[in-house]
Amino acid sequence: MNYFLLEFYKNKYIINDMKIMGIDPGMAIVGYGLVEFDGEECTLLHSGSIQTDKTKHEAARLLEIYNDMETLVQMYKPDAASIEKLFFFKNQTTVMPVAHARGVILTVLEKYGIPIYEYTPMEVKQVLTGYGRADKKEVEQMVKYTLGTEELPKLDDTVDAIAIAICHSRSI
Amino acid sequence: MNYFLLEFYKNKYIINDMKIMGIDPGMAIVGYGLVEFDGEECTLLHSGSIQTDKTKHEAARLLEIYNDMETLVQMYKPDAASIEKLFFFKNQTTVMPVAHARGVILTVLEKYGIPIYEYTPMEVKQVLTGYGRADKKEVEQMVKYTLGTEELPKLDDTVDAIAIAICHSRSI
Repeated sequence: MNYFLLEFYKNKYIINDMKIMGIDPGMAIVGYGLVEFDGEECTLLHSGSIQTDKTKHEAARLLEIYNDMETLVQMYKPDAASIEKLFFFKNQTTVMPVAHARGVILTVLEKYGIPIYEYTPMEVKQVLTGYGRADKKEVEQMVKYTLGTEELPKLDDTVDAIAIAICHSRSI
Repeated sequence: MNYFLLEFYKNKYIINDMKIMGIDPGMAIVGYGLVEFDGEECTLLHSGSIQTDKTKHEAARLLEIYNDMETLVQMYKPDAASIEKLFFFKNQTTVMPVAHARGVILTVLEKYGIPIYEYTPMEVKQVLTGYGRADKKEVEQMVKYTLGTEELPKLDDTVDAIAIAICHSRSI
């Protein structure tokens, strides 16, 4: 066996470390989690949230999201973005601001040529736990297990973003 | 009477010509109409539409809207923007792309510090015709009358955008 060639292909084609940015869109809070996937395992590189100023009007908050997303994308240079897809809405008044924010986030990702993958909350649960109606705790448990950690960020939106990134790593 | 002073104040404070950009948001078509309002009358300066490539994916179309809106705002330097507010949705699958586009448009307007005013279709009809449930023809008639023209752009989205701009001129 030609180990040199094996190593070459491994690096070049087979196991290509991939930085996936998971995003949980919102107007008040945009959760994000940057996960590195080596073809087998996921490592959490960074996670956090964009939190907009509630005293500001909607357009000002959208511009905050635009600018902060741009900074994150420039800083972390993700290879792919995995973003929550809005599907069923119980409450129409809350979905509008989220949809506005989501449009802004998609625009920034496209501007930097980052491939975008979309998953519904049900798909994320299905992929992570094998059950589309899994509860929050079960999803959190699988995120901890996948990352090999007992500690998760406190903010739900950030944990959700990490889960969405992991979901994509398992869908490649 | 000091005519010089009168002219000075007229120009400086009282009758301050205002360029209002009316916008009818959408994913496939964004209608826009630039109306100059001198405190009494409205003149149509320019109107048109941004039409995105239907073969492209959503994020690419949003980036087109972002870039084209930015060009329009830089070119026409409106003093105010008047944009349709999404209120009732019968069809949720069609409202999501519109909301995405709307978020992008609000971001561009905010980036250039343009004050944003929002009106529901019902408010536009109410202000233009005096009747919130007026039909399309009645609104068109009032747009023609206001601009003193018999010719309107062919595209409904463009006419709607002009109507939204006129609505704001009557709400100042």
